[in-house]
Amino acid sequence: MDDPPRYRPADSTASPRFSGPRTFMRLPHTKATDDVDAAIVGIPTDDAVSFRSGARFGPEAVRSASVLLRPYSPDLEVDLSETLSVVDYGDAPTVPGYLELTLERVAEFLAPLHREAVVPICVGGDHSIALAELRAAAKAHGPLALVLLDSHADVWDSYFGVRYFHGTVFRRAVEEGLVDPSVSTMAGMRGTLYSESDRYEPGRLGFDVIEWAEMSELAPEDFGTRVLERAGSAPVFVSFDIDFVDPAYAPGTGTPEVGGPTSGEALAYLRSLAGLKLVAADCVEVSPPYDAGGVTAWLAATVCHELLGLTVLGRP
Amino acid sequence: MDDPPRYRPADSTASPRFSGPRTFMRLPHTKATDDVDAAIVGIPTDDAVSFRSGARFGPEAVRSASVLLRPYSPDLEVDLSETLSVVDYGDAPTVPGYLELTLERVAEFLAPLHREAVVPICVGGDHSIALAELRAAAKAHGPLALVLLDSHADVWDSYFGVRYFHGTVFRRAVEEGLVDPSVSTMAGMRGTLYSESDRYEPGRLGFDVIEWAEMSELAPEDFGTRVLERAGSAPVFVSFDIDFVDPAYAPGTGTPEVGGPTSGEALAYLRSLAGLKLVAADCVEVSPPYDAGGVTAWLAATVCHELLGLTVLGRP
Amino acid sequence: MDDPPRYRPADSTASPRFSGPRTFMRLPHTKATDDVDAAIVGIPTDDAVSFRSGARFGPEAVRSASVLLRPYSPDLEVDLSETLSVVDYGDAPTVPGYLELTLERVAEFLAPLHREAVVPICVGGDHSIALAELRAAAKAHGPLALVLLDSHADVWDSYFGVRYFHGTVFRRAVEEGLVDPSVSTMAGMRGTLYSESDRYEPGRLGFDVIEWAEMSELAPEDFGTRVLERAGSAPVFVSFDIDFVDPAYAPGTGTPEVGGPTSGEALAYLRSLAGLKLVAADCVEVSPPYDAGGVTAWLAATVCHELLGLTVLGRP
Amino acid sequence: MDDPPRYRPADSTASPRFSGPRTFMRLPHTKATDDVDAAIVGIPTDDAVSFRSGARFGPEAVRSASVLLRPYSPDLEVDLSETLSVVDYGDAPTVPGYLELTLERVAEFLAPLHREAVVPICVGGDHSIALAELRAAAKAHGPLALVLLDSHADVWDSYFGVRYFHGTVFRRAVEEGLVDPSVSTMAGMRGTLYSESDRYEPGRLGFDVIEWAEMSELAPEDFGTRVLERAGSAPVFVSFDIDFVDPAYAPGTGTPEVGGPTSGEALAYLRSLAGLKLVAADCVEVSPPYDAGGVTAWLAATVCHELLGLTVLGRP
Amino acid sequence: MDDPPRYRPADSTASPRFSGPRTFMRLPHTKATDDVDAAIVGIPTDDAVSFRSGARFGPEAVRSASVLLRPYSPDLEVDLSETLSVVDYGDAPTVPGYLELTLERVAEFLAPLHREAVVPICVGGDHSIALAELRAAAKAHGPLALVLLDSHADVWDSYFGVRYFHGTVFRRAVEEGLVDPSVSTMAGMRGTLYSESDRYEPGRLGFDVIEWAEMSELAPEDFGTRVLERAGSAPVFVSFDIDFVDPAYAPGTGTPEVGGPTSGEALAYLRSLAGLKLVAADCVEVSPPYDAGGVTAWLAATVCHELLGLTVLGRP
Amino acid sequence: MDDPPRYRPADSTASPRFSGPRTFMRLPHTKATDDVDAAIVGIPTDDAVSFRSGARFGPEAVRSASVLLRPYSPDLEVDLSETLSVVDYGDAPTVPGYLELTLERVAEFLAPLHREAVVPICVGGDHSIALAELRAAAKAHGPLALVLLDSHADVWDSYFGVRYFHGTVFRRAVEEGLVDPSVSTMAGMRGTLYSESDRYEPGRLGFDVIEWAEMSELAPEDFGTRVLERAGSAPVFVSFDIDFVDPAYAPGTGTPEVGGPTSGEALAYLRSLAGLKLVAADCVEVSPPYDAGGVTAWLAATVCHELLGLTVLGRP
Repeated sequence: MDDPPRYRPADSTASPRFSGPRTFMRLPHTKATDDVDAAIVGIPTDDAVSFRSGARFGPEAVRSASVLLRPYSPDLEVDLSETLSVVDYGDAPTVPGYLELTLERVAEFLAPLHREAVVPICVGGDHSIALAELRAAAKAHGPLALVLLDSHADVWDSYFGVRYFHGTVFRRAVEEGLVDPSVSTMAGMRGTLYSESDRYEPGRLGFDVIEWAEMSELAPEDFGTRVLERAGSAPVFVSFDIDFVDPAYAPGTGTPEVGGPTSGEALAYLRSLAGLKLVAADCVEVSPPYDAGGVTAWLAATVCHELLGLTVLGRP
Repeated sequence: MDDPPRYRPADSTASPRFSGPRTFMRLPHTKATDDVDAAIVGIPTDDAVSFRSGARFGPEAVRSASVLLRPYSPDLEVDLSETLSVVDYGDAPTVPGYLELTLERVAEFLAPLHREAVVPICVGGDHSIALAELRAAAKAHGPLALVLLDSHADVWDSYFGVRYFHGTVFRRAVEEGLVDPSVSTMAGMRGTLYSESDRYEPGRLGFDVIEWAEMSELAPEDFGTRVLERAGSAPVFVSFDIDFVDPAYAPGTGTPEVGGPTSGEALAYLRSLAGLKLVAADCVEVSPPYDAGGVTAWLAATVCHELLGLTVLGRP
Repeated sequence: MDDPPRYRPADSTASPRFSGPRTFMRLPHTKATDDVDAAIVGIPTDDAVSFRSGARFGPEAVRSASVLLRPYSPDLEVDLSETLSVVDYGDAPTVPGYLELTLERVAEFLAPLHREAVVPICVGGDHSIALAELRAAAKAHGPLALVLLDSHADVWDSYFGVRYFHGTVFRRAVEEGLVDPSVSTMAGMRGTLYSESDRYEPGRLGFDVIEWAEMSELAPEDFGTRVLERAGSAPVFVSFDIDFVDPAYAPGTGTPEVGGPTSGEALAYLRSLAGLKLVAADCVEVSPPYDAGGVTAWLAATVCHELLGLTVLGRP
Repeated sequence: MDDPPRYRPADSTASPRFSGPRTFMRLPHTKATDDVDAAIVGIPTDDAVSFRSGARFGPEAVRSASVLLRPYSPDLEVDLSETLSVVDYGDAPTVPGYLELTLERVAEFLAPLHREAVVPICVGGDHSIALAELRAAAKAHGPLALVLLDSHADVWDSYFGVRYFHGTVFRRAVEEGLVDPSVSTMAGMRGTLYSESDRYEPGRLGFDVIEWAEMSELAPEDFGTRVLERAGSAPVFVSFDIDFVDPAYAPGTGTPEVGGPTSGEALAYLRSLAGLKLVAADCVEVSPPYDAGGVTAWLAATVCHELLGLTVLGRP
Repeated sequence: MDDPPRYRPADSTASPRFSGPRTFMRLPHTKATDDVDAAIVGIPTDDAVSFRSGARFGPEAVRSASVLLRPYSPDLEVDLSETLSVVDYGDAPTVPGYLELTLERVAEFLAPLHREAVVPICVGGDHSIALAELRAAAKAHGPLALVLLDSHADVWDSYFGVRYFHGTVFRRAVEEGLVDPSVSTMAGMRGTLYSESDRYEPGRLGFDVIEWAEMSELAPEDFGTRVLERAGSAPVFVSFDIDFVDPAYAPGTGTPEVGGPTSGEALAYLRSLAGLKLVAADCVEVSPPYDAGGVTAWLAATVCHELLGLTVLGRP
Repeated sequence: MDDPPRYRPADSTASPRFSGPRTFMRLPHTKATDDVDAAIVGIPTDDAVSFRSGARFGPEAVRSASVLLRPYSPDLEVDLSETLSVVDYGDAPTVPGYLELTLERVAEFLAPLHREAVVPICVGGDHSIALAELRAAAKAHGPLALVLLDSHADVWDSYFGVRYFHGTVFRRAVEEGLVDPSVSTMAGMRGTLYSESDRYEPGRLGFDVIEWAEMSELAPEDFGTRVLERAGSAPVFVSFDIDFVDPAYAPGTGTPEVGGPTSGEALAYLRSLAGLKLVAADCVEVSPPYDAGGVTAWLAATVCHELLGLTVLGRP
């Protein structure tokens, strides 16, 4: 790309970064899709969380923290200002108290982006939104390779007699044919379970499961190789649940699990995915009311930044 | 009543009040209804809130604060330990993301209490739960006189294309015949509205509406007289939305409105209702994640205490 | 005005108010001045505060809280959606560590608004910004009548050997001929002083000073009459320092003074100014890091809402 | 006094008030008693609190907030810099887990002050410390007139089988002959009690009891007259429990009671005591870990400031 | 055990885990000891803490966090629902301000559990409570092997002239013959000391001391082997002071020491103790008022969960 | 040194460490320089921070946390009480809003310390203060070897058109000849940058730059050797920006970068500098309003403690 991208972050040496309405990295807020490579999309909902709510303010908090980010990622060696046209596309419509309706409206909201080959980087919102994201993406791309970084596998069958919930999302995605488990990976699982059989359920569904106990022994590059080889040429959806990271680094979330990776480790695993053919991604479960010191939002904003970098590196 | 009540709070001069699992006022936690006059019931949901969530932890926070309460109310001159058998009945079942299902399960959970003539004092949860409470109460008692202390009248027709929400609850209650507006009062309304017509909607539905601007000029005893005269002999449901009170006194709530009463004023208006024939009551919209200093929970616990006192004073 | 205003807040019954990047009341963010009556302008600086900093995040916090506001003010009986075209004009440029340079850049940023007869409602930032606002306004309108609601008169001569500071701003404004004390009022002063002579300094400069001890005995309508009579036909600048209000209602500020008005009282005094010929106004000294429960931001957002209403009511 | 006092606060126009180690009002920290009229003394203990602890950090928080105070009180019309030599005397020794030993050591620590006619203004710490203060003061002055501003009368007989606790302190003081109830006043009582008989216990001990319900109807000057007439020429100990004030104004305390006075009302009652022959005073029960927004510490610091002013005005 | 245990946690797929009064893991709250293998016991005291108080609310916070735990531990491969009958036994009686009396009452409260061979898992409270736990346990089992995970060795001789304090507890335990140092291990010590001789004091008393600098070089399995070999067949008391963990993972504590293990590391060391003959255990020094984001409570709840698992694995 | 040092911390076994006005480690607060080896100096300013302010309260927070420190450092094997006479020298004068003037006054304030060969350990305040510290130190010692531990290199040329800012400080220091880059090291850099060229700028200025990606692979002792060899016999200034550490360990700072070292790692790198000829040092960018749980202040206090230890070990 010779010309600089059409849409770029504001310059923080010209005005202090604490100035102006908060869009992601102070990007233009627009519904335009022309000359757009990627779009930040908020999905403000916490309807489907099983413990602490608050994730409806996740997009606001991540935008607020993101203004501290600068365009060049030294780890990925990508300068977003030079290589990617990005907009803040605003927030998808949600309907508090009506999870299934929310999922429909969100999928519809994302559809135009996929039609225009814009990569949506979604900011949650609880993890239930991944089902809407997958519906929108699969409609355009067919079944996707899922790469999940999460402390929970979210493949329970039902809760309280209902089938849609943040802990059932990937079982539903398989059932609906949105995800192809044979090219997909789930990594980072840890913490207590309802029973031993829970532990083997994702594997029975066909996923490659790398529990945190195993993952923590894998060098990031080895992890990356394993995921990339499994994904092959499939279009990929990366889902980063912030509770993948230890709650010391990410207290602002709904169902934390102690004993997880540091932020540095988590980012290294994420960066190891460079080369995946990314068509959609998200960072979910940031719950600002519990985010002491705001560290969760910093981390989530950085995750989104690196997802943008992976978008650059995953282009054909 | 000659014998002391069967169920009473624990004695805080025997063990420190910060001891033991938190039930309301360290009452027995039981599903018993024999020899029970009133029951504290938590309804942990925040599905239907239009701004800040968190009210699902309202019952926990109110129980936690309530252990500081002692049985005698000097303002009402009622000693609960001597006059009312009260239990902590636990929490109603809720289904996150499925508001209408939640309302059904809550109404069902409350039914046995009304059958046994136990007065439920419910702790929210967002205000949508009032619809479930009214369904359960009206089934046993017929249409009720509503006495609402709230900064919002909650009679909008729909939001986002759906009809059940915390801002539509009393319109639905009228439509379902649960509440008789001609004997009902709404008091405390203030703050910005969508349009001028919003202002007159509750009146058009038949309620006596006392906006805060008018209410603040009324002495509590005059307010009480007006409400009691209107209610007549109807069975009464008192609903106390904590956002009735100024957010300096109750910051822990979802849709605060500045410029409201102090806690002292709010309690005086509440106590002026002594003599109403109370068959059910609630205190709703306490959102602990936003409750700086815990003052909202103290206030809500005190409101519940006075609602128990009103139960004593409203007995035939 | 027959047609509805060109720029209006987003509709919160169509999408939840917690959706999308936060502009004031979800207004359009634009630098347009055509068909614009008033503009919200952030001035994010805390360079000149003598105690707790943090006010640089004041505009972000007020925007965040403002999305809860609806367009109709029942107290002023003004529907902004029907009567006033308002935009979010973004933030003025500031230069941390260089107060005098900041003041120059802010005045320059505001100049086009006054040239186009747009009323700027500025959101601070510390109180030093009023000097820049007054320079911009006086250039277009000549010397202004100041109406100050504040616990401090801010007329000290110097601090630490320098002349520009948030406590010296109105002395500078008089010296520069921006404010005409003979038509101006300062109200709400309270709290400890360096010496008795401090107390009489604003009066010596020619202001009408109404200390809180006196003000609290005045009915709002009498206060309003006194201020309006004094202002006469002069163009007016209203400055609302959030520390005018008691810190229970506004803890998020830099130099709080206990023993002040409630939020309801403060708003009543503000509303009593209806009829003033408002050409500029601000709400300053909101410091979010100290804003437990967010109550200060709610209040400041409401103050801005009523300042917009006063703009409507003050039009010729 | 013609010469200025020997010990005075630092000048906050010379260096910012947020500079330097925090002593009260940036006074000299010294054990000197020569040329000293009054001394601020911290008593950092929370051993005897029945609910939330944390008051051991009360002295630190009050010192931290006090640096914002200036020497002239416009309400009392007293300039401390011109009329009173004050030092920060440091903190009394305490022994966590050994309340009775703490009380002994505190009394001993205060003795030299009374010997040198220095008025100690103590900063708690929980209310149990008043017993130590009274022991020290009564040893020098004989039985004292107590003026208590508090939401609780603290005259219970025992808790958990022990006799020393923050709720029993004034019963012990009467038993030990430290306080003469016939010249003493207790004001501000409110909130729930263990039983109706609790309510009349302070009166049975001989105190004049003014419950908040009655007090709130009394103008401050009438309250002051009643207290002063009762005290007569007795040496006076004023004890200000911060929970006298409503928790919206003072959330940082251990056993809050909703429905109390505002900070402005509380200070007005306190200032009405001008003329009392003050020989000792305290402000207790500030618990910083619960002090959202720091408002409690501001208020307590202001209370101490006015207690210093009352010391000036109560001098023969 | 063929039948499932009599007492088990509530099922969180039937009702949301944020429902109902908080007992540990929503276990039955009962004083029953029949068919009970282990009991969670709160010991709410902070009398003996040398810095920040608040630990009296530790049991409440740990119970609140514990409802997120599920019964199966994948690391220990233990399903509590299938293998261990556990109850929430409530809280031991404490007497604020009377540490020695508290210790007596706590020991007495625990005695029946040891008589019935129920393993008490105690939740502090400050570390002084270990002395009471050891007295109760040693009475039934004779001198115990202590396994201490802590950043401090707590073997100082006296503070402020008294002998009972949270920093002297294990010296007292040795003197009273409750602990046999020759089979005991102290691990995790770090941070500043009063003098170099402090460092060698626990060793002089006969303990095997593994400072954190050494421990961090030991693989968990090697650590476990060393501890188990030393303990031999002695009955074991495991004490987990939450300040063993770095304050980033456990800020909610009274005397934090930076530079410690992560939560993952800490749990790995704890799990390496599988096989010890556990007769009592605790997790202490959780101070909720300082627990930003609640991460300390999550960790402490998980520690208790694994202590229950170790109870299963240590059975003969 | 045979006699114990003249100035030493207070004894925390005699009075609880939470007693008395907070000086660093409860050291004497004095301007004396006789018999003084090192001085703690606060520099309370946040004028030059590009994002979150609040660092003006850094010195207060670090002093508050420091009272928990004991004199012996087991890692450095240094007992401060036996080897170093230290005072709390109070705070340097600052002028909010006038950064350049602040820098002049701070340099002047520090001059007498260097004249008397007292090592100042400064507590920020934002990083701009290092320029003042370097001016004072270089005047006495000539150009210094800088050892910077920081996530940012702070060598940008200008911001907002001005040349003094917390991000430009070391470029200015080189230009003014205060620092000799050829003997200096910058370590810990990470996070996003404005462009790739930013990355190589410090190297172009002549510094040895060790980015965190490289540093994290270096054992502390190897790092120490590299720094010491480069510094040679030059007088050294060590600057520890708290944002060097991961925000999970240090949330209370203005421009955090995720993915950094743990507190244990950071301290190990710091201790590896033993042997450097230290003439001045600082710990900067602690911003208490954002310091959830206070962990940042604990860490910064410990850093200062170890800087005092390095002073002992670096003496000729």
